[in-house]
Amino acid sequence: MMKALVYHGPGQKSLDERPKPTVQAPTDAIVRITKTTICGTDLHILKGDVPTCEPGRILGHEGVGVIEEVGAAVASFKPGDHVLISCITSCARCEYCRRGMYSHCAEGGWVLGHMIDGTQAEFVRIPHADNSLHPIPADADEEALVMLSDILPTGYECGVLNGKVTPGSSVAIIGAGPIGLATLLTAQFYAPSRIVMIDLDDHRLAVARQFGATHTFNSTRDPIVRLVRDLTEGKGVDAAIEAVGVPATFELCEELVAPGGVIANVGVHGAKVDLHLEELWSRNITITTRLVDTVSTPMLLKTVEAKRLQPEQLVTHRFTLPDILDAYDTFSRAADTGALKVVIAA
Amino acid sequence: MMKALVYHGPGQKSLDERPKPTVQAPTDAIVRITKTTICGTDLHILKGDVPTCEPGRILGHEGVGVIEEVGAAVASFKPGDHVLISCITSCARCEYCRRGMYSHCAEGGWVLGHMIDGTQAEFVRIPHADNSLHPIPADADEEALVMLSDILPTGYECGVLNGKVTPGSSVAIIGAGPIGLATLLTAQFYAPSRIVMIDLDDHRLAVARQFGATHTFNSTRDPIVRLVRDLTEGKGVDAAIEAVGVPATFELCEELVAPGGVIANVGVHGAKVDLHLEELWSRNITITTRLVDTVSTPMLLKTVEAKRLQPEQLVTHRFTLPDILDAYDTFSRAADTGALKVVIAA
Repeated sequence: MMKALVYHGPGQKSLDERPKPTVQAPTDAIVRITKTTICGTDLHILKGDVPTCEPGRILGHEGVGVIEEVGAAVASFKPGDHVLISCITSCARCEYCRRGMYSHCAEGGWVLGHMIDGTQAEFVRIPHADNSLHPIPADADEEALVMLSDILPTGYECGVLNGKVTPGSSVAIIGAGPIGLATLLTAQFYAPSRIVMIDLDDHRLAVARQFGATHTFNSTRDPIVRLVRDLTEGKGVDAAIEAVGVPATFELCEELVAPGGVIANVGVHGAKVDLHLEELWSRNITITTRLVDTVSTPMLLKTVEAKRLQPEQLVTHRFTLPDILDAYDTFSRAADTGALKVVIAA
Repeated sequence: MMKALVYHGPGQKSLDERPKPTVQAPTDAIVRITKTTICGTDLHILKGDVPTCEPGRILGHEGVGVIEEVGAAVASFKPGDHVLISCITSCARCEYCRRGMYSHCAEGGWVLGHMIDGTQAEFVRIPHADNSLHPIPADADEEALVMLSDILPTGYECGVLNGKVTPGSSVAIIGAGPIGLATLLTAQFYAPSRIVMIDLDDHRLAVARQFGATHTFNSTRDPIVRLVRDLTEGKGVDAAIEAVGVPATFELCEELVAPGGVIANVGVHGAKVDLHLEELWSRNITITTRLVDTVSTPMLLKTVEAKRLQPEQLVTHRFTLPDILDAYDTFSRAADTGALKVVIAA
């Protein structure tokens, strides 16, 4: 048996004893979790916003650990290997995987802690282990690397790559939560001239300045559109990156984007938004959506190794698995606790 | 003096005597119009939908003609040269022009027949003539080439290029009017596997089949979404191209686009649309908007010369300038007259 954080329906979770997972397919690996974390998506599940996640599910789609056992077809990993778990499971063989769209893998996608049991436990079963795990050094900084399971590739792929951030360009990131900050960190790979962070929490904006934002605006009191236009010769930004997931912030991006620019959506949305095509039809803009594919994870691992990226900066609180309910409490009250990412040692 | 079709406010136009235009800047050329045509945008102006176009304006932004006179700074053209007039005026020097976004030229963009007098006249003044005119052979087919002033580059740039039409891909074009048909003709440069045309007019759908559509559906009676899914293994199309300009057709594109696909907007919109981000946030889609830049016009001229493109197929009716009010009547009652493009010889 093992300890695991189990979802029991909207508003209900507990730390339960559950059977240790076993290899079910030859492509499976069993990983002993050493570090995991909590994602905003886990809170969405707990609110009942993700009906495809059924009660009884072990939550969590982020983790670092050590291989415990592998199925007969796993070629790249053996027991004892230190690994990073990708939030996206991918077979590497289907049409979508061959196009680099692991998020839409016919046998995977976002399944961990959603359609199958996840990483907030002592052990987890990882399907298609060869393509869904990444080797990391034995002495790797696990706190840093667990940030690469989801939020760093999400900010980078959905925000920075889709937003076509280039040297000298102007970028606005709406939302200075963990995903927005991950976008801010990885946008700096490309030397934009301005990175404006917008949030309603002054503490998060202060963090954003420490992390490299050139300007920060508080949407509860600053005239955002005018300030951004003033910074950009009246044009607006080349990349407006939405990292919240509500209509107001997406619609703000529509006002902030320059002709020829991109609105890159990163946020998870639960409602439709107004798209003002009567204004935008002639502005030569691009809007992108994306569920992270985690195709950039090997590259991001190299940037951490080379110290071009310090994702451990995002970790504000530390817990152990027996205290995971406290970790949830701290993370869900982020406005009070100042939590960005909480790391849980299993 | 010369004859010209003049806009006199919503619902009002007449064929008037107006002074012949003269060179006002050293970069101007005066062109004697030999062929012009009417665009759906001219009808929008006449409905009062384009308040930036003031009464007294000579309409028209499409034309072929012969250079009558040039300003001292015009280097590429001389009197007697046969030219195609671009619907977009561009200085070639401003930041947007250098980025290939002629539509947003600081001294141009869509000004002809809008902010300055246009081509539905015996003569027209063309600012920034070196970059806003294209040389054509003395014996060129003027009816074919006048289609390259606007609708062919519009369909190609806003629809085919933005829609990333590639060999083997699946394409749906919503709207089989002149712009949708221009998109259909130029999409075939790239050998897509399926081009589905959707309209509510059976006559236009029959034309679309003649022009190369692989499937045509009538939105007044066919279950479009199911039929398109059946054609695409349940996925939807790689490119959904909106060539109408109303919310219903854009929102249909949201239902038709496959994961990883593009919605390329070509239509001119007068109202906001519902963007269903609650469905689309995770589908890895791209939405593009664009006012035609006419950067592709030199390439399109080569495809006409090489007979890879026969834009004269779009011409259904012919008039002379004294009969231009009849031409407007025929074009504006297209559902009855079967008109696609009407050519007016000046």
